Amino acid sequence: MNPTNEASQSAATATAAKRVLIVYAHPEPESLNGSLKDAMREHLLASGHEVQVSDLYAMKWKAEVDADDFPQRDRAAKLIVPSDSRRAFDSDALTEDVRLEQDKLRWADALILQFPLWWFSMPAILKGWFDRVYANGFAYGVGEHSDRHWGDRYGEGKLAGKRALVSVTAGGWQEHYSPRGINGPIDDMLFPINHGVLHYPGFEVLPSFVAYRTGRLDAAQFAALRERLVERLDGLWTDAPIGYRRQNAGDYELPALTLRPGLERQGAQGFALHVDDAAARLAS
Amino acid sequence: MNPTNEASQSAATATAAKRVLIVYAHPEPESLNGSLKDAMREHLLASGHEVQVSDLYAMKWKAEVDADDFPQRDRAAKLIVPSDSRRAFDSDALTEDVRLEQDKLRWADALILQFPLWWFSMPAILKGWFDRVYANGFAYGVGEHSDRHWGDRYGEGKLAGKRALVSVTAGGWQEHYSPRGINGPIDDMLFPINHGVLHYPGFEVLPSFVAYRTGRLDAAQFAALRERLVERLDGLWTDAPIGYRRQNAGDYELPALTLRPGLERQGAQGFALHVDDAAARLAS
Repeated sequence: MNPTNEASQSAATATAAKRVLIVYAHPEPESLNGSLKDAMREHLLASGHEVQVSDLYAMKWKAEVDADDFPQRDRAAKLIVPSDSRRAFDSDALTEDVRLEQDKLRWADALILQFPLWWFSMPAILKGWFDRVYANGFAYGVGEHSDRHWGDRYGEGKLAGKRALVSVTAGGWQEHYSPRGINGPIDDMLFPINHGVLHYPGFEVLPSFVAYRTGRLDAAQFAALRERLVERLDGLWTDAPIGYRRQNAGDYELPALTLRPGLERQGAQGFALHVDDAAARLAS
Repeated sequence: MNPTNEASQSAATATAAKRVLIVYAHPEPESLNGSLKDAMREHLLASGHEVQVSDLYAMKWKAEVDADDFPQRDRAAKLIVPSDSRRAFDSDALTEDVRLEQDKLRWADALILQFPLWWFSMPAILKGWFDRVYANGFAYGVGEHSDRHWGDRYGEGKLAGKRALVSVTAGGWQEHYSPRGINGPIDDMLFPINHGVLHYPGFEVLPSFVAYRTGRLDAAQFAALRERLVERLDGLWTDAPIGYRRQNAGDYELPALTLRPGLERQGAQGFALHVDDAAARLAS
């Protein structure tokens, strides 16, 4: 009798088994990021879910978009990334590495990103995963583009119905990323990822998991952090997502795509305009 | 008589010659980004300045931080990026590609970034330029770290006294990046770059140059755009930089690094807290 399988099966009867893709970007397998990735994988499997991990460094993922990404293109012609990407996507002629990652995204019910915050964003290898996997026709350029409907994006798109969670480690203090902290509020820092990369093609995005001061964790602090993260996984299917507004559901003027007056919380500015707190509360 | 040299010399007598590094990230030399890079280079040379261009795709720049970046490290030991980076920087043992780019940054009076906005941030190859060139001891981990002074950063650092300008192309409309636009305000979108990447090691950062709707430029629109960009270069040494607050000059509580109460413009929130509008006006 294998105790892991036993746990796996009893959990699977309690909640329906789901499929999770973890995309992980750290060059050192024994790093904190590597340990958190392993902890998530183990916990999800023990909960009866299926898990795939894209370990970008282990895969030697190519980060740069270039002409080699479109093998059937006319090499004498000028490279126009959106056009070449669209032609290759439509004719199933993207490179195999990209097609495999797109298949994983189609397969997954949830996407988790695990990475260290480097210069207030993703490591280049992970940025390059999105730059290449998010082809024209797959993650953008989807649906009707007219004065009435500006593409299937920001709440619609090919990845709609799936959930996403960013799990990130930062060397700095939580205060440095607080509403008045010098780096800027962490939710604003991550908005270009949560809203611009994940919500854009349709993901429902959960509030990010952020570990601070990760340069100096002792064993007890690591154990507490790991516990806090895997607890979040138990809410992966039930926690309220960030209430990002849907582009084509009436909140925005078309085609300017500016938020209609008066919809926002009193005094809200900037990125916060695009979160409908009431929607998030209703979903929870 | 060479008219370019003539122009060059007369301009050089009018303003002191300066040194400009352009870091450029696009896979197609004949792209709009390539043309704008060429236009800037020509205009700066004609104005009597010295120019170096780091053409990241042409250089086949390696985007990924990994163990190969630290050739003298103990390969059996766990890779700890900040520690390995520090040891390699202090012993002049970083790889030659990284050392050459650091030398260009030391040489330059101004840094210009030219790139397309991909997924609301830099292309991976440019992110990887910062991830690798910005070593520990060079761009972070500089100066005293104590409860009174949290490193030489955000206004101090090894790149203090230099200026920086982001020039970026976006396919979307200007309205989509306006204060109520669905993508979020462009200044907030670029804050993690302008503040977090450029101001952090000391650069004075000029307001970004942004070209919108770049998928559909005709020749006249391109000529107008080019003109608008090279005009900005004439203000490279005199335009008022964004008034980002200096970390160690009294505006922040230490060590929490939160902005002291009452310093901000009435109603300001989020990233805008860290801009002192009065400082920008005084500098202009």
